[in-house]
Amino acid sequence: MMYRTHTCGELRLSDSGKKITLAGWVQKTRDFGGMTFVDLRDRYGITQLVFNMETNPDLCRQARSLGREYVVKATGTVAERSNKNPNLPTGDIEILTEILELLNPAELPPFTIEEHSDGGDEIRMKYRYLDLRRPPLQRNLALRHRMAQEIRKYLDTKGFLEIETPVMIKSTPEGARDFVVPSRMNPGQFYALPQSPQMFKQLLMVSGYDRYMQIVKCFRDEDLRADRQPEFTQIDCEMAFVEQDDVLNLFEGLAKHLFHETLGYEFNEPFIRMPFDEAMNSYGSDKPDLRFGMKIIPLKSGKSQQEIIRPTTGFPVFDEAEYIGTLLAEKCAGYTRKQVDELTEFVRKPQIGAKGLVYVRYQEDGTIKSSVDKFFDATALQTWAEVAGAKPGDLLLILAGNSAPTLKALGELRLEMGRRLNLLDKNRFVPLWAIDFPLLEWDDETQRFYAMHHPFTAPKPSDIPLLDTNPGQVHANAYDLVINGVEIGGGSIRIHDSKLQAKMFEILGFTQEQAEYRFGFLMNAFRYGAPPHGGIAFGFDRWVSLFAGLNSIRDTIAFPKNNMGRDVMQDSPAEIDEEQLKELNIRVDHKNPGA
Amino acid sequence: MMYRTHTCGELRLSDSGKKITLAGWVQKTRDFGGMTFVDLRDRYGITQLVFNMETNPDLCRQARSLGREYVVKATGTVAERSNKNPNLPTGDIEILTEILELLNPAELPPFTIEEHSDGGDEIRMKYRYLDLRRPPLQRNLALRHRMAQEIRKYLDTKGFLEIETPVMIKSTPEGARDFVVPSRMNPGQFYALPQSPQMFKQLLMVSGYDRYMQIVKCFRDEDLRADRQPEFTQIDCEMAFVEQDDVLNLFEGLAKHLFHETLGYEFNEPFIRMPFDEAMNSYGSDKPDLRFGMKIIPLKSGKSQQEIIRPTTGFPVFDEAEYIGTLLAEKCAGYTRKQVDELTEFVRKPQIGAKGLVYVRYQEDGTIKSSVDKFFDATALQTWAEVAGAKPGDLLLILAGNSAPTLKALGELRLEMGRRLNLLDKNRFVPLWAIDFPLLEWDDETQRFYAMHHPFTAPKPSDIPLLDTNPGQVHANAYDLVINGVEIGGGSIRIHDSKLQAKMFEILGFTQEQAEYRFGFLMNAFRYGAPPHGGIAFGFDRWVSLFAGLNSIRDTIAFPKNNMGRDVMQDSPAEIDEEQLKELNIRVDHKNPGA
Repeated sequence: MMYRTHTCGELRLSDSGKKITLAGWVQKTRDFGGMTFVDLRDRYGITQLVFNMETNPDLCRQARSLGREYVVKATGTVAERSNKNPNLPTGDIEILTEILELLNPAELPPFTIEEHSDGGDEIRMKYRYLDLRRPPLQRNLALRHRMAQEIRKYLDTKGFLEIETPVMIKSTPEGARDFVVPSRMNPGQFYALPQSPQMFKQLLMVSGYDRYMQIVKCFRDEDLRADRQPEFTQIDCEMAFVEQDDVLNLFEGLAKHLFHETLGYEFNEPFIRMPFDEAMNSYGSDKPDLRFGMKIIPLKSGKSQQEIIRPTTGFPVFDEAEYIGTLLAEKCAGYTRKQVDELTEFVRKPQIGAKGLVYVRYQEDGTIKSSVDKFFDATALQTWAEVAGAKPGDLLLILAGNSAPTLKALGELRLEMGRRLNLLDKNRFVPLWAIDFPLLEWDDETQRFYAMHHPFTAPKPSDIPLLDTNPGQVHANAYDLVINGVEIGGGSIRIHDSKLQAKMFEILGFTQEQAEYRFGFLMNAFRYGAPPHGGIAFGFDRWVSLFAGLNSIRDTIAFPKNNMGRDVMQDSPAEIDEEQLKELNIRVDHKNPGA
Repeated sequence: MMYRTHTCGELRLSDSGKKITLAGWVQKTRDFGGMTFVDLRDRYGITQLVFNMETNPDLCRQARSLGREYVVKATGTVAERSNKNPNLPTGDIEILTEILELLNPAELPPFTIEEHSDGGDEIRMKYRYLDLRRPPLQRNLALRHRMAQEIRKYLDTKGFLEIETPVMIKSTPEGARDFVVPSRMNPGQFYALPQSPQMFKQLLMVSGYDRYMQIVKCFRDEDLRADRQPEFTQIDCEMAFVEQDDVLNLFEGLAKHLFHETLGYEFNEPFIRMPFDEAMNSYGSDKPDLRFGMKIIPLKSGKSQQEIIRPTTGFPVFDEAEYIGTLLAEKCAGYTRKQVDELTEFVRKPQIGAKGLVYVRYQEDGTIKSSVDKFFDATALQTWAEVAGAKPGDLLLILAGNSAPTLKALGELRLEMGRRLNLLDKNRFVPLWAIDFPLLEWDDETQRFYAMHHPFTAPKPSDIPLLDTNPGQVHANAYDLVINGVEIGGGSIRIHDSKLQAKMFEILGFTQEQAEYRFGFLMNAFRYGAPPHGGIAFGFDRWVSLFAGLNSIRDTIAFPKNNMGRDVMQDSPAEIDEEQLKELNIRVDHKNPGA
């Protein structure tokens, strides 16, 4: 006995006359009086089985009794179809079925197993194993598989070694919370699940492994926003004896290889490398979407010489603004009042935070109208339009305020205009390397510096003296790969000098004891001959979702959790036995008392 | 600036005259008056740097000051060596060094970084990052990398999809203890770390993924024996629409591919397939080492017709024995009293458990002497010798007692003889498939059946009626891959019928509620069209250690834990903040009180 000779996706006209056996799921059964057709489905495709009431009534009746999602095995002969289906690779043939075996019946699924299901989100999560049968999910997981293989293949040819780092490590929270695991054999002590294998990959460089890679699960106990998972997958890489350019060049090669092998997409030019400051000033974001232009144009800026709008205008919003900038929305002068109001509402949303929106219409007839006509004459408005490069028919959208938040708001408005103008083509990809990030971010609330990337990132050598005088001005050898406005990965050249590392910990406000407790083994390792090294980590889930054209990472993952961190299919997490808790030397403390 | 143009392993005589730059670690510095030689090491090899006191005294002095494990960069010209070293791939050349740059100094390592270190186990674990620099460790991890790549490559060509299953799942302990993770967002509830992705891979078959593979971390909170790790790596696979033969054939192909690609080792014959009963009767083990023969020969057996030793002999040990068996140790008749005593001591060890050892020497002169001459005449002994196929010069080693423990003891004695006779050649590999395992094992202590493999293993269809009448006699469609006496992997055809699965849970003593709580989602899934399926999982750490010729899995793992589950390098597990515990709604309960 053998369950099948072929899959449901492979038979063609050239197989006509062959005696074959298929196995799969019943997608659909159709009766046409004397004939019954069954669409049999597996991962590879759909093949039509035919049953004839005249020649074999018993078999035909058996076929008619099959329900959706029944699992069957069918033996028959491949025959040319009279009524060919050009939408199916197997659409030229059908199987004249001779033997039909029911392998397993199926209850009626709670939603349709089709390209687009009729099931709601919640029920599809509960019956994830059924949702996973749908073609889009199957395509996503097949794409993810292909990408994983191609990533390893490429890095293998470049001499990277795949090395597994431990999942149960020491808790060293900095930033997000760790998930922890109580140790039964070491009462009162806990392992942590890694937020990333950062320190281990640096140790591997100290150990001389030269080039390391791993596609690895990482864990963060965060309050989950729309597109976060408590466990996620990282493409984690590190290289010794490299400078920033070596890393960027190698992983640009990886990205191009992936684009080519999985999407057939070619890049003939090197990826743009854009300094952080430029990205912020021109796009209001450190991950600009470069599928369209619409750069931010400064009209008044503390930093730039280009002060188009003079200090005293009589318009307090502008007079008091540290920064004024505009977007040029081409051919949008005809925007209705409603459209402009929508944009105003958009920029006023709390997460955008602008106070209002100033617009200037450069009308088709050459006249200019604005929402600030009271304060500015035609000449002034004309000047702005000229600076922005506006032509008749264009619209200027202007925001004013403090530099950083105004630039960010302009960045968001730019993306909103990109969406409205259909400039975000899912089939076009524009990658860039964002480089020259600041090393540190000042946090007003806790009155300390935080590492913008992580505490192991190397400052630019020329900026090292600034660590003592003006740490906020220090730039880092850190970089992000951004594609279509999505941060796909990021990394840095690391500190390999134990004294510089100690200084960084000091700047970050760690006492020597804290630094020793958390990172002691790494600082020790640096004393025994650490090579210069650097690396990068990519968010694999996100990269797959970008390539799959998805807005969320959830459907790139076979068994994701919901935004309460629950697996509703397994009904997990769950309570555990008192006995198990006792063995682990812990107690559940539901009341969470202050003492 | 660029850190290197070549690695320390690639320069050859044909590169003579080239100007190159290397970077790496100082392995050794040797002074010969006017000349100083530095062996520079990286992952790829060792290259000799030369410094000449006459032509460049400053540089030469700099070279002399380098300590072991200093990290340096050297630029110079490749030159033919007068004194070639045939043991090094780069031994024909040396580098006439012109520029030397110290990249990082190193403290003196606490042990030597050589093929064989002078450091003890404990200190090497504490400084694992230094131990990892040693060539044997580097070879092990490179082999592990190569094997991982080849496993995926092979399975990819066979249509397997690599699909990641979750690490934080529901606790469903059966067998070993789960590690658990308290959920902050779901107070009082816990995730578990998977002991294997068993249920998820079966769900993927229900979901139609057809062929699944993953190289995946698994977790078991066990008291650690010599060669166990709390986290270990499994090559996890599952296939739909298959029978046992399909699985064995495919993974035999994988094993052969791995042998070929990583060891250059060829098999021209199919692997032996040996039923469990035969393995136990002939080798006293379900994982026989077939690198040598020395099968167990029954002299008295409840099961066999071959009763060589008659019921009444006057020797109570034999008279009362349910089973008597012998090993034929060829050319060992000359064993000294001391050697025989050692063997007697060996079989009497508690973990072997025999009461004593009977020997029969078939001496070179044709006479026979035994430790039971009092009870048996020459004719009787002659008969045993004949049955065992002994020739003059051979030795019979006989054990007697209850069947199962005596067979196991004979199996251990056989391995001990294999070791003593040097029959365990590390460079020879003899694989077999152990098949036809019993489905269930009876446990006297808890008075219940346990699944020998796991609760999802399918009974042989012909044995299904026995489930009601004599469950202990049911055989399973389960199989193990055994190489040189090491169980490399095991698997089974699974139950795909929800009613049969429910019956199995009943036989295993689960109440319906328990089964529903633990496995409900799987049993539900089976109602919606589950295909016949089966799979296998290999212990990746063990497979690597077998190929690397190691006796332990520890050095196939970059950062292993000790047998208290501790990472002594990180000093983990460790206590965590009171604040962190509070957020997780748990308390440490050091006293572990009974109530």
